[in-house]
Amino acid sequence: MATFSHQIKVRGFHCDMFQHVNNARYLEFLEETRWEWLNRMTSFEFFEKHQMSFVVVSITIHYRWPSLLNDVLNITVETNHIGNRSASVKQVITRDGDSKLIAEAEVTFAMIDNRTGKSVPISDELKAFFEN
Amino acid sequence: MATFSHQIKVRGFHCDMFQHVNNARYLEFLEETRWEWLNRMTSFEFFEKHQMSFVVVSITIHYRWPSLLNDVLNITVETNHIGNRSASVKQVITRDGDSKLIAEAEVTFAMIDNRTGKSVPISDELKAFFEN
Amino acid sequence: MATFSHQIKVRGFHCDMFQHVNNARYLEFLEETRWEWLNRMTSFEFFEKHQMSFVVVSITIHYRWPSLLNDVLNITVETNHIGNRSASVKQVITRDGDSKLIAEAEVTFAMIDNRTGKSVPISDELKAFFEN
Amino acid sequence: MATFSHQIKVRGFHCDMFQHVNNARYLEFLEETRWEWLNRMTSFEFFEKHQMSFVVVSITIHYRWPSLLNDVLNITVETNHIGNRSASVKQVITRDGDSKLIAEAEVTFAMIDNRTGKSVPISDELKAFFEN
Repeated sequence: MATFSHQIKVRGFHCDMFQHVNNARYLEFLEETRWEWLNRMTSFEFFEKHQMSFVVVSITIHYRWPSLLNDVLNITVETNHIGNRSASVKQVITRDGDSKLIAEAEVTFAMIDNRTGKSVPISDELKAFFEN
Repeated sequence: MATFSHQIKVRGFHCDMFQHVNNARYLEFLEETRWEWLNRMTSFEFFEKHQMSFVVVSITIHYRWPSLLNDVLNITVETNHIGNRSASVKQVITRDGDSKLIAEAEVTFAMIDNRTGKSVPISDELKAFFEN
Repeated sequence: MATFSHQIKVRGFHCDMFQHVNNARYLEFLEETRWEWLNRMTSFEFFEKHQMSFVVVSITIHYRWPSLLNDVLNITVETNHIGNRSASVKQVITRDGDSKLIAEAEVTFAMIDNRTGKSVPISDELKAFFEN
Repeated sequence: MATFSHQIKVRGFHCDMFQHVNNARYLEFLEETRWEWLNRMTSFEFFEKHQMSFVVVSITIHYRWPSLLNDVLNITVETNHIGNRSASVKQVITRDGDSKLIAEAEVTFAMIDNRTGKSVPISDELKAFFEN
């Protein structure tokens, strides 16, 4: 279960009136990192073939330190837990250079069958995919 | 060609590090107002029946004065010009209370046939719809 | 500890490529509702007088059902827990009309002294304020 | 007046319910590119030293072709016109690989004195800076 890392630079429009990255924007940073991670695993074909998609069922995020304009953030994602009907990833945001911890999150997904819209069990093949 | 008006209150996450509403957010305000306007005209059924949709082809926006947290904005939309293959609306953003001019925009659309993805002429029926 | 409720209508730009409101946007909905709630309590003057501000330290959100274009959402906020150095609110998002549960969240804050940037104890006066 | 280019990959949250990048998001892409450009010129120190900042006074954007999830966009910026009290840049967005034209924009700025909030003439030093 290797850790994938993606870099995002803080822009003026990411910051809100307190001059810090807004709470909601961090969820975009986390999502961008997860997409980049999935893309590296060429998962799109995999999920399309199986007519399944992941939906986020819950997010817990701890904001540890504000990030500011021009901060470069390193955002990681790694598989945390794989259950029968859901899976979770752990994501950590640190500031590049001094590794200051900015935020930590756990994101939980369920697997949905695109044809029925209903949750389906996570197959062994898919478990292997995420444990890779 | 009556003017439709919609109200939006400025939130902390609308503002960027300069404590003003960010340039890009105004486009969301304009879009929200256009949707509200179209919804009042029950246009969705109209467009679905004809399998057509409008796509924005250009926007010109002039930022006249910054708006700040808790400002209440009145955002108008009115039909500006209806051509054969495109139409435009004029949108004005003013601050509630003192009517301070915040921004002015012109938004131009083309009509697209959903089945071909190509631009189609604006029918007389549709022209009447927008002149209403 | 009364429950405050605020209404937001889902717009096209709130939805992402899956045609559902994007995960991150819900955090803006929650934040807008908290601001509206605080504004009703004229808390701004209170916090400015004391040179304090609240910072979000963590958010847990459960996404229960997707919301779609033109859904009207009722978003509540109520005080959940008031500790010595942090406080939390519970927020629930339901769909207007049928009260379908869309999302539930718990948002935890700390109180910061603006002059030092450091966390300070929540005073009895402030506790009374939130228990109101 | 060299052309600066910056690359952005389209994410799921950039797209709206039509599965295309939303109109407003393009303005964030343009702004990110301008910041990256200014950062390369170490302009922050320059503007701080002179206690001035640029404010966007108008944007005209033409949307030429929709961009989709995972498209990689090349976004350029180059000085277009430098007047006495305003300056403009031209920005072009093309799709990486086939250079398909996605959008073109012209962004006009004024120079503001931070101490007075008023527009000031663009000095010869600053003109040289932008002509560089």
